[in-house]
Amino acid sequence: MATIPENCRDLFAKKAFAHVATVGRDGTPQVTPVWVDYDGAHVRFNTARGRVKDKNLQRNTKVALSMQDPDNPYRYLQVRGRVVEMTEKGADDHIDALAKKYLGRRGACHRQDSSREDPEHGMSAPPRFRRPPPA
Amino acid sequence: MATIPENCRDLFAKKAFAHVATVGRDGTPQVTPVWVDYDGAHVRFNTARGRVKDKNLQRNTKVALSMQDPDNPYRYLQVRGRVVEMTEKGADDHIDALAKKYLGRRGACHRQDSSREDPEHGMSAPPRFRRPPPA
Repeated sequence: MATIPENCRDLFAKKAFAHVATVGRDGTPQVTPVWVDYDGAHVRFNTARGRVKDKNLQRNTKVALSMQDPDNPYRYLQVRGRVVEMTEKGADDHIDALAKKYLGRRGACHRQDSSREDPEHGMSAPPRFRRPPPA
Repeated sequence: MATIPENCRDLFAKKAFAHVATVGRDGTPQVTPVWVDYDGAHVRFNTARGRVKDKNLQRNTKVALSMQDPDNPYRYLQVRGRVVEMTEKGADDHIDALAKKYLGRRGACHRQDSSREDPEHGMSAPPRFRRPPPA
């Protein structure tokens, strides 16, 4: 299993958003910024059931992301892979951890916010994905 | 033809990168940060011939982007559409304009830089794309 290169992992300790791309039924890509972390094996993010990203990933697990270093936008990480798990188990704890990382506080208020401007809120279902091994 | 909403156009005056997603032959998305501008009708960006983005767009013109406001990452623009033109005509002037916007200088040195960390360099071929009309 491919993993995130060691020299890029510091990005996950920063408040760097990942722009996650999925592909729709008709082959159209969709990309939005999300909160993200890395558990040492998988990249994890939250989305809400019923969103375009969720619907796309239910049909097609292929996914990609790009993340820029907030301290140097010309340093960025690009990942392509497949979602290996979509689950609601642990999702509340996960979004709390993400809220603490990105907002410096717990995520309760964040989850209750129904603003569409907020890239991740509402019911949470963190897909995890890994990069495929090099061809 | 759909256009970029007026209340989002200020993003193109800022040094906001667009994370551009394309789709490969096997249906895998790819997404990377690029310099971008808006000519009033089309979003324009440069890429180099032979890059994954270029190869993908030669086969499949469907494209998407997300752009965060550098002053507020929770304000972002999402676009889905099709590339309507890929051309090298005017590409040097275009990358010069982008270099001035993002780096505050002309792009000559930038083009000669072969660093892979730089999201856009080398031969330039600015695809232009527009959003499809609402379904």
